[in-house]
Amino acid sequence: MDLEALRNFLRSRFPQVAGDYLPEEHEGRLVLRLRVGAHHLRPGGTVSGPALFGLADVAFYLALLARIGPQALAVTTSGQIDFMRKPGPGRDVLARPEILKLGRRLAVGEVRLYSEGLPDPVARAALTYAIPPDPGGKAGA
Amino acid sequence: MDLEALRNFLRSRFPQVAGDYLPEEHEGRLVLRLRVGAHHLRPGGTVSGPALFGLADVAFYLALLARIGPQALAVTTSGQIDFMRKPGPGRDVLARPEILKLGRRLAVGEVRLYSEGLPDPVARAALTYAIPPDPGGKAGA
Amino acid sequence: MDLEALRNFLRSRFPQVAGDYLPEEHEGRLVLRLRVGAHHLRPGGTVSGPALFGLADVAFYLALLARIGPQALAVTTSGQIDFMRKPGPGRDVLARPEILKLGRRLAVGEVRLYSEGLPDPVARAALTYAIPPDPGGKAGA
Amino acid sequence: MDLEALRNFLRSRFPQVAGDYLPEEHEGRLVLRLRVGAHHLRPGGTVSGPALFGLADVAFYLALLARIGPQALAVTTSGQIDFMRKPGPGRDVLARPEILKLGRRLAVGEVRLYSEGLPDPVARAALTYAIPPDPGGKAGA
Repeated sequence: MDLEALRNFLRSRFPQVAGDYLPEEHEGRLVLRLRVGAHHLRPGGTVSGPALFGLADVAFYLALLARIGPQALAVTTSGQIDFMRKPGPGRDVLARPEILKLGRRLAVGEVRLYSEGLPDPVARAALTYAIPPDPGGKAGA
Repeated sequence: MDLEALRNFLRSRFPQVAGDYLPEEHEGRLVLRLRVGAHHLRPGGTVSGPALFGLADVAFYLALLARIGPQALAVTTSGQIDFMRKPGPGRDVLARPEILKLGRRLAVGEVRLYSEGLPDPVARAALTYAIPPDPGGKAGA
Repeated sequence: MDLEALRNFLRSRFPQVAGDYLPEEHEGRLVLRLRVGAHHLRPGGTVSGPALFGLADVAFYLALLARIGPQALAVTTSGQIDFMRKPGPGRDVLARPEILKLGRRLAVGEVRLYSEGLPDPVARAALTYAIPPDPGGKAGA
Repeated sequence: MDLEALRNFLRSRFPQVAGDYLPEEHEGRLVLRLRVGAHHLRPGGTVSGPALFGLADVAFYLALLARIGPQALAVTTSGQIDFMRKPGPGRDVLARPEILKLGRRLAVGEVRLYSEGLPDPVARAALTYAIPPDPGGKAGA
């Protein structure tokens, strides 16, 4: 799936969040932009931890679909995230996913999150997805 | 902080999500209820992974505040979650937090998440919070 | 597999570490004892982090074998551990594994580690194992 | 600390494992070699999960000491590891640590592990260390 296909997939399958996430390509690699809105913020104007976790999860999901196509009912089986810096106020957050293993049953990867225009990552996540053996199966949450 | 104080704290400090989360007490222990709404669901009617992660995060945060009081600017430094079962459709999700360590600088705990009325956990999370040395400091995200 | 079967399994299949680990039963539940020796210690006499991680890993593995039998080539696919307190000097470490999900392809659980005779856990780990579809397959590390 | 200082530090402070680990420099970056021996292996000749976790832990520790010097009593507070591929038989394992955050109280990083000469990582770990406020303090395990 290319960038246009990923955007269409988000709009048709995840209409309730498609406005939050914009798939982009930076230097040949997939980047997912979180268009930060009021519903992502904690008191003080910081992007909330769960909003960052959600961004990492969707970014890895799209990176996976770009490789295996839209038909797969891949589901997250586990995630781990380190919150390292307060996101810069008033800045979108950009997620850079990386697939480290794409097996028959499990995909494993890492995502780094940056406040747009700032060099140091605000968070780093590891995600594992289960890939169902057939389109009808669903293995996790 | 008791149950009423936690509810007031949520309403005054986190008004944008206070309607989603209801602190309760089951058999003497704090339980946080996620009132599942359309914005928590993925296609197929499943509660999304990030919604479950957010529930675990807030549940542990409230358990911590119940111990150290509302003044602390505690922030999540890391989280890890295993998604084990699809949440039951049409059911609220209940989070049971447990504090395993409450140090001067770090608090560590675990949260188990259940679809209301079902015996097996849908997810299990570990959370670490940084506790700032003084009210003016903020160490993480 | 009962306690005796687990001990024999360790001796026959993992002879190089069988002297370190002793499966026991406390109040009807499997407990794995780490007989702490000089090779488990860091300077200062503390049990090392990797020794604790290894104990958690083997404890969950044995809990899994007790359920599914010795034939399975189950392999760890991921682990997460929080080190919370310095282990008490001169004390064995006891691991209490708990299986939270036993699916066809993945088993997920938690292990708490205690210095013998002390009430608070020294560490807490989450483990995921892949269960191969057939005895000949091997899916992970 | 440079490479020679790290090697001397390992020999003097961790004599029991100094023979297992060799700090090297590849293309200007610190790499820690695990000289795989019989005591690192599981049945079948695979490097064990705990041996890989230990390698990642020590690699990040040395990367940290290279930045903050040998005086610090830094201790691991948490670790997470994904085992992705079976290590190649008869090959050493090389760990490439990366520091993502070096704060006053916490250091966070990532380590990728490779079988020597093979392109795909066998494992990927995230580590968090607590840095004590003064040389006399010790915050974790």
